[in-house]
Amino acid sequence: MPAVSPLAPAEFPALPAVAGVRLAAAAAGVHYRGRRDLLLATFAPDTAVAGVLTRSQTAAAPVQWCRAALAGGRASALVVNAGNANAFTGAPGVAAVKRTARAAARLVGGPAGRVFIASTGVIGEPLADARLTRALPALHARLVEEASGNAAWEDAARAIMTTDTYAKGATRRARIGGVSVTINGIAKGSGMIAPDMATMLAFIFTDARLPAPLLQAVLRRANGRSFNAITVDGDTSTSDTCLLFASGAGAAHPAIRRAGDPRLKDFRAQLEALMVDLAQQIVRDGEGAGKFVAVTVSGAASEPAARRLAFAVANSPLVKTAIAGEDPNWGRIVMALGKAGPALDQSKLAIRIGGVPVARGGRVHPDYREAAAARHMKGREIEIAISVGRGRGRATVWTCDLSHGYVEINADYRT
Amino acid sequence: MPAVSPLAPAEFPALPAVAGVRLAAAAAGVHYRGRRDLLLATFAPDTAVAGVLTRSQTAAAPVQWCRAALAGGRASALVVNAGNANAFTGAPGVAAVKRTARAAARLVGGPAGRVFIASTGVIGEPLADARLTRALPALHARLVEEASGNAAWEDAARAIMTTDTYAKGATRRARIGGVSVTINGIAKGSGMIAPDMATMLAFIFTDARLPAPLLQAVLRRANGRSFNAITVDGDTSTSDTCLLFASGAGAAHPAIRRAGDPRLKDFRAQLEALMVDLAQQIVRDGEGAGKFVAVTVSGAASEPAARRLAFAVANSPLVKTAIAGEDPNWGRIVMALGKAGPALDQSKLAIRIGGVPVARGGRVHPDYREAAAARHMKGREIEIAISVGRGRGRATVWTCDLSHGYVEINADYRT
Repeated sequence: MPAVSPLAPAEFPALPAVAGVRLAAAAAGVHYRGRRDLLLATFAPDTAVAGVLTRSQTAAAPVQWCRAALAGGRASALVVNAGNANAFTGAPGVAAVKRTARAAARLVGGPAGRVFIASTGVIGEPLADARLTRALPALHARLVEEASGNAAWEDAARAIMTTDTYAKGATRRARIGGVSVTINGIAKGSGMIAPDMATMLAFIFTDARLPAPLLQAVLRRANGRSFNAITVDGDTSTSDTCLLFASGAGAAHPAIRRAGDPRLKDFRAQLEALMVDLAQQIVRDGEGAGKFVAVTVSGAASEPAARRLAFAVANSPLVKTAIAGEDPNWGRIVMALGKAGPALDQSKLAIRIGGVPVARGGRVHPDYREAAAARHMKGREIEIAISVGRGRGRATVWTCDLSHGYVEINADYRT
Repeated sequence: MPAVSPLAPAEFPALPAVAGVRLAAAAAGVHYRGRRDLLLATFAPDTAVAGVLTRSQTAAAPVQWCRAALAGGRASALVVNAGNANAFTGAPGVAAVKRTARAAARLVGGPAGRVFIASTGVIGEPLADARLTRALPALHARLVEEASGNAAWEDAARAIMTTDTYAKGATRRARIGGVSVTINGIAKGSGMIAPDMATMLAFIFTDARLPAPLLQAVLRRANGRSFNAITVDGDTSTSDTCLLFASGAGAAHPAIRRAGDPRLKDFRAQLEALMVDLAQQIVRDGEGAGKFVAVTVSGAASEPAARRLAFAVANSPLVKTAIAGEDPNWGRIVMALGKAGPALDQSKLAIRIGGVPVARGGRVHPDYREAAAARHMKGREIEIAISVGRGRGRATVWTCDLSHGYVEINADYRT
């Protein structure tokens, strides 16, 4: 069991109940022994759902299930297990998802197609789904009795962990047309991915009443600036899943029909803030992470170009090892920008590290003093700002360093 | 000074003289102390030249110089220094290249535009080119006196090293229309790149008489299957340079005008074999490398698709750390294929590790025994073969593992 990341928050935040959402965790023994590894959440009738899923061509069976289920736009339950990703498991994997969804549907009522499933853990091993379906009835019985208090949320966040060193949660309140709603989120991931024993999962719950297509538009936009703006190692999981459930069981608020409705502005902002919070918690738990790194590119020809440039820097093993070594090796940033793809005019490039001007006009800044940048590199929070002088495209991505810890965690045997 | 790579060849090969090519090395003191860091090669009149250069948008000044010089198709000299890449050095860097080329041209005669320049080492530091130009006259005088024997070739290969742990050379003989010609090559690199103190450089010399456009076509094709088929960390250098010089000073052979001429077949094959040899030597000296890895993808929709899939596996930090840990973690191979981009049908995927069938039909192979794959992983030479069942596209790329050694080398301070 690796030590808790030095970048971990002091404690799990206090999450309030979300009307129309109940959740509880149990130990199903899928892979781990002596810990909870199964999460069940149930939703009020007419709960709307939106989701973004991995674009991997080797997506896991639960991802394929969720993709189909999202078309319906309604959710009755969510079942998540840790320890086995049910990925690259062929037809038996697909059947395992179906059996699990049916078992949950029998408990909560309604069609199996309203049950959402996510699995995280080892790839390629058959999932013993009987362990899940056997544990579900007792879990469901508990949900009927208990309210979802703070302990339930932390239990839930903990049950979906794999190589994570701490549980991840966040909460926000937003106003829709003057009425207050709650948004809670839990996530796991210790790497944007790490297909062996980690994958990014995020589940967000609100008591707002919003139709599924609108929810989908809002989620997709916020996702681009949160979970899709982080990287630990550039490896994309077979199982990345982010689902947003809106129970509509909170205080009545004005009906909203368009994502662009100004009365939805605060909700959109709070949702994005919550997702950025969870996304950054994942990076701070990146495998072996010792430094949290923000890479901002401005002045690119477009936002996609800015993202490509920022990700090239954030994914470069040479940049990341330099950060682990507390070395303000800005030449590697120049290299990473050069290989990213978007056309660059070297004479317009400028780079700052922790606010210290490092390069300008296609060469080292005349006033650059390495000692100042080196001081910044010794901290836990590293800021790299790049200006490319071509347009108005801007993007920030978050990552961590590449340390011996990463190699240690990932060179170990699975057993 | 890191220990010599465990994957290093037993010794530097015996390279014969190449008619029309002379070369020698000296200590110019650009960055290193107490070792040779400057290479000068001079060529017979009418030597033809071809080259492939980094496509980085932050390409170094010497790369930009070579790009322009290649248009002329003729070479009189080659000057290479190690320790400073003269990259991201602005107008002063461009002026430094020009002064160096002019100094060499004064010694060998002819225009400066026939002098080729390459630099490797730190990015962003001004190059003290006076140290190069000061050392050139004595170096040139030595060339006039000495023949280029085997010691000269090893000296040359050693002078261009940065973080390399051994000198890299190769030689082949080829027949053109029944006449024997010689091809020698030297290279450096300890990573497909590592922009701090390493970059891929390769210089190839032949006494064949071939026109520059033909040479360019032959080089480009062989490059795609050699240097462009290796990766250590996926980071692309600002300075990658591969130049092929044909002195035409060997035994007279039939004139060849088309790259497709059947009489050129053996030359093309031998050139490619030499370049694969050098490329593999670079991977075997990859920073921290403990394993040499060949990733072959067959059955892809096209050759580019096969390359993308193979590179996604070869560049995946999770695959590479698993190899370092001698873990036949094939789920990570599935993950890397999934994120690569090309469309896949999971049910047609098959994976072998060291010949052991691991996965087939979208799931683990029914006869898979992990012990057999684990045995293969303990060796120095790792083979991963992937079949995707979509077409006839095929590609092999070579890489090494991602070990603690890589982090150690690259997390160190530059000083």
